[in-house]
Amino acid sequence: MLKDVEPEPEPEPGVVEASVCQRVLKTLLLCTGDMEHLVKFMKDKFIVLQLVVCCLRGVSRVTLANNPLSGAFILAALYWASPWQGLLGTLGVLVSTLTAVILGQDSGEISGGLHGFNGMLVSLLIGEFSSADDWYWWLLLPVCFGSATCVFLYSGLSSVLDRWGLPASVFPFNIVIVLYLLCSGSENPYFPQHPAKPPGGLDSNGTKLVITEVMRGIPLGVGQIFACAALGPSLLILAAILLYSPLLAYHALLGSAVGTLAGLSMAVRHGSLYSGLMGFNGALGCMAVGGLFFTFSWRTHLFAIASAFLSAYGDIALSNLLGTVGLPACSWAATLTATLMLLLTGSLAAYRIPIGQVMAPEHNLLFRSRWEAQNAAEKENANISLQGVHTNSKSIASEP
Amino acid sequence: MLKDVEPEPEPEPGVVEASVCQRVLKTLLLCTGDMEHLVKFMKDKFIVLQLVVCCLRGVSRVTLANNPLSGAFILAALYWASPWQGLLGTLGVLVSTLTAVILGQDSGEISGGLHGFNGMLVSLLIGEFSSADDWYWWLLLPVCFGSATCVFLYSGLSSVLDRWGLPASVFPFNIVIVLYLLCSGSENPYFPQHPAKPPGGLDSNGTKLVITEVMRGIPLGVGQIFACAALGPSLLILAAILLYSPLLAYHALLGSAVGTLAGLSMAVRHGSLYSGLMGFNGALGCMAVGGLFFTFSWRTHLFAIASAFLSAYGDIALSNLLGTVGLPACSWAATLTATLMLLLTGSLAAYRIPIGQVMAPEHNLLFRSRWEAQNAAEKENANISLQGVHTNSKSIASEP
Amino acid sequence: MLKDVEPEPEPEPGVVEASVCQRVLKTLLLCTGDMEHLVKFMKDKFIVLQLVVCCLRGVSRVTLANNPLSGAFILAALYWASPWQGLLGTLGVLVSTLTAVILGQDSGEISGGLHGFNGMLVSLLIGEFSSADDWYWWLLLPVCFGSATCVFLYSGLSSVLDRWGLPASVFPFNIVIVLYLLCSGSENPYFPQHPAKPPGGLDSNGTKLVITEVMRGIPLGVGQIFACAALGPSLLILAAILLYSPLLAYHALLGSAVGTLAGLSMAVRHGSLYSGLMGFNGALGCMAVGGLFFTFSWRTHLFAIASAFLSAYGDIALSNLLGTVGLPACSWAATLTATLMLLLTGSLAAYRIPIGQVMAPEHNLLFRSRWEAQNAAEKENANISLQGVHTNSKSIASEP
Repeated sequence: MLKDVEPEPEPEPGVVEASVCQRVLKTLLLCTGDMEHLVKFMKDKFIVLQLVVCCLRGVSRVTLANNPLSGAFILAALYWASPWQGLLGTLGVLVSTLTAVILGQDSGEISGGLHGFNGMLVSLLIGEFSSADDWYWWLLLPVCFGSATCVFLYSGLSSVLDRWGLPASVFPFNIVIVLYLLCSGSENPYFPQHPAKPPGGLDSNGTKLVITEVMRGIPLGVGQIFACAALGPSLLILAAILLYSPLLAYHALLGSAVGTLAGLSMAVRHGSLYSGLMGFNGALGCMAVGGLFFTFSWRTHLFAIASAFLSAYGDIALSNLLGTVGLPACSWAATLTATLMLLLTGSLAAYRIPIGQVMAPEHNLLFRSRWEAQNAAEKENANISLQGVHTNSKSIASEP
Repeated sequence: MLKDVEPEPEPEPGVVEASVCQRVLKTLLLCTGDMEHLVKFMKDKFIVLQLVVCCLRGVSRVTLANNPLSGAFILAALYWASPWQGLLGTLGVLVSTLTAVILGQDSGEISGGLHGFNGMLVSLLIGEFSSADDWYWWLLLPVCFGSATCVFLYSGLSSVLDRWGLPASVFPFNIVIVLYLLCSGSENPYFPQHPAKPPGGLDSNGTKLVITEVMRGIPLGVGQIFACAALGPSLLILAAILLYSPLLAYHALLGSAVGTLAGLSMAVRHGSLYSGLMGFNGALGCMAVGGLFFTFSWRTHLFAIASAFLSAYGDIALSNLLGTVGLPACSWAATLTATLMLLLTGSLAAYRIPIGQVMAPEHNLLFRSRWEAQNAAEKENANISLQGVHTNSKSIASEP
Repeated sequence: MLKDVEPEPEPEPGVVEASVCQRVLKTLLLCTGDMEHLVKFMKDKFIVLQLVVCCLRGVSRVTLANNPLSGAFILAALYWASPWQGLLGTLGVLVSTLTAVILGQDSGEISGGLHGFNGMLVSLLIGEFSSADDWYWWLLLPVCFGSATCVFLYSGLSSVLDRWGLPASVFPFNIVIVLYLLCSGSENPYFPQHPAKPPGGLDSNGTKLVITEVMRGIPLGVGQIFACAALGPSLLILAAILLYSPLLAYHALLGSAVGTLAGLSMAVRHGSLYSGLMGFNGALGCMAVGGLFFTFSWRTHLFAIASAFLSAYGDIALSNLLGTVGLPACSWAATLTATLMLLLTGSLAAYRIPIGQVMAPEHNLLFRSRWEAQNAAEKENANISLQGVHTNSKSIASEP
């Protein structure tokens, strides 16, 4: 998409203004998608700068994006929502990326930010569930330990899941945060925390549902991917996704809306709907299938909606189950659903993009249509040459 | 077994009566086993008729059978026990089969009924655990959604389990029903349900065990495979299995008896024994190993009894565990045990029949003995020809 | 290491005394490590003697050792601590080994004791959690049944885990004991048991921590691998590990200390620290990585400490989770952690020893350094010959 923009030869004086516009647009376009050109650009740069870029990529990976600018916007949103949470998230992505370097993980994976996002999520949720005040410095201990553990899990799980061409995605985060919360328990004197509330069960005082609040929960669902429940930062996070890929941002909102609908159909607590907690699993499940791991088309679009519903209902189920021991369901449901979808056989499997070639949805779409056009052209050529051979052989046969 | 029955040439007048008897028997025999001849017969028939046959096969698949007539008998039994449950079951098998068609699953699998049985079981259990009255039409919503989800899980799990030559069997049903029950919870205003009771824990008022009731629980255990606790329909279901394969029916009863014995040894609630809930996991575990996935012999027979015990004890354990959060253990224990048995190495693995070639136990037995006889003959021939070669080579060597 | 000790030719009269010392040392050294020479020695011996040796190897396998003498010492320690527990353990290892023979498992695995240790652990823990008095003979029933089940699970799980070169290790024990405890429940009239206490939650009466008791918990942690909480037998068990491999014994103590430290950092109940229950998962996690499955070096040593921490924290988390339903976490945490470590990619994977070639840590170390020296020598040779070829080709090229 970006590679095709070739440098134009000497613009004429009359078209200068239009050219300026085009250049601005081009520069803007350079900041969207996977920013692959940055990879080459960064190769011989200072190591700290490389680390910053791969950490920012890691931050954006949480929303299935892969763009350092999106990562910067998301980090800004987190600092905006709560400086302490922003600090924890930064520390998490740093520690896990450095651990991956020390453990000698694949450098391509590290520079792609694949070892950062799990650590970041763990750190954010350790902070979120802590019942101590902000700036409780002892919390840095489990944050560092938890983030480092993610790298072990990511590497180990990748070895297992590779057999089916599956990504380890956020399984490490989900495992580590559940273990941390179980380990510290609710009455820990060093790391106190408040237990998660299951979404099931009616509100005691029969309050009425406020539609505007429910609508507000839809963009909040996108923010809740980072455990952020404020509207402004959530919208900034949505903008960061939009920068990476408009299609992904659309699916994020759509999935969050589907999740809210699923929550309404199961009569969950109103608080869960208002805070966006019902939406984020649907959003993740919808984003993974719609455009990212599967080429966008009307069939995969319906499929993405089905995936969002499965993720959302699965989340309610797991939240009710884990809520009985005071645990949150995190993004287990979306992760499991997306993994299931990638395993699917049948006609939808034809739309699947191999893990190694997954890029921004728009790129996938373009790449696919070109590739298909090429295939079709090749087939036609093959047919023509085959016909030629037939004609030749006929003429040879009929010659005398 | 059936293919060998060739049409006899012109019967003599004196043997006509015997011939009528034989013909009736032949027609009856055509209705037993896997009814493979029907597959060819149905190929160019009306599509709705094909759908009906593959749905009926799906119904019979629940009891590990693969016979549309058995399926029809079972469906009749369910309508007899409760028309509402029968309707839910029919809807479940239909919806999941159609979903498989839409998702472009393998047509051989669909026509074999492999995409129907999970959806049917989910529908039956959604109805069973609903605390609303019969004909509560809103229940059709989760029934349709749950049945459709089974196809996704069946396809995804098959991809994973294929690596070890394992079938997805009823894992999708077990996963979906547990998620549904968790999702709706016990106090849901739209889909109310009554929680499952764990079998452990003594009866409060020290009632005595009634032996006749316990004995009655054994055939009921076969009916409980379809969540049916009435004696008449249970016997009809047993008859349906008998029609498919007498060996399978024998193992069903044997397994149910073993399950009841296991329940007695662990002092479970009397109600669990009387209702047959203790028996159905044992029955399934016993049926899978005895004759179906392993060729019948005295060794595999002992093995089937061991499998029934493992399934039954596993069911008590899982029921106690899941009962703490009000969930039933469904057929998790039998499914896991059968899967474990299929993974076994050692001398028993020699009796295992590859998943693709599994048919009625009688057919497996016949096929195996023939195949072994053939192998033995071939070996003998090879030996003879080898001896011949030796003699020849000797004579050649000694020639001059 | 041992094979190299060649018989010396005719010692001179002056060196006889030194020679006696040497001979004693040699005989002692023959009793350490894997005692491979015994395998050949036992081949044509009486079958009962062979069974005894492979059972003793099975006993030592619990501590990741593979030495019949260590096994004998451990069994003696168990009889010392409690004759009833010793009897149960002996029965468990016997029953599961015999079951493996009946099921036709691989004879190499059986004689290596790989089918004994899970059964032994199950038997010991069935006895440990029973709230009936010692010598309650009915307990032999679940002991036999549970031990036999371990063989099924070991064989089945090995088939699955083989794909990633992973051992089934103590997964069967962990599964069977949890299922048994769930199956019998806490109020069972036939097999009464006392539920496990989760380590989390503060002690009611704010007692002070006794440092000496905590220090005493470290060697007790090694004994707790066999559910033995007495100091004397624990030290004897440690001595048995020392006999097999000093490196393994060092890691056992180190891991137990790390586990205690982890327990302190999470403010667990004092009882858990004093009894050594906090230490045994750390010990197992540390032993598996340090020297056994990975060649010993300073990098793998740090790695072993990380593994011990992960095992210990994982154990606290799982104990808190399973404690809510009265279940113990057994060695789930250490087993899962060790499995994860074996899956790890990156620079540490280079130190991994393939499962089939795992022996005593000292042997691994020696074998590795020799093997590496050999490789280096080969490379040098290759380089020299390559240079020779170069020179030759140059001379040939320059010849005329």
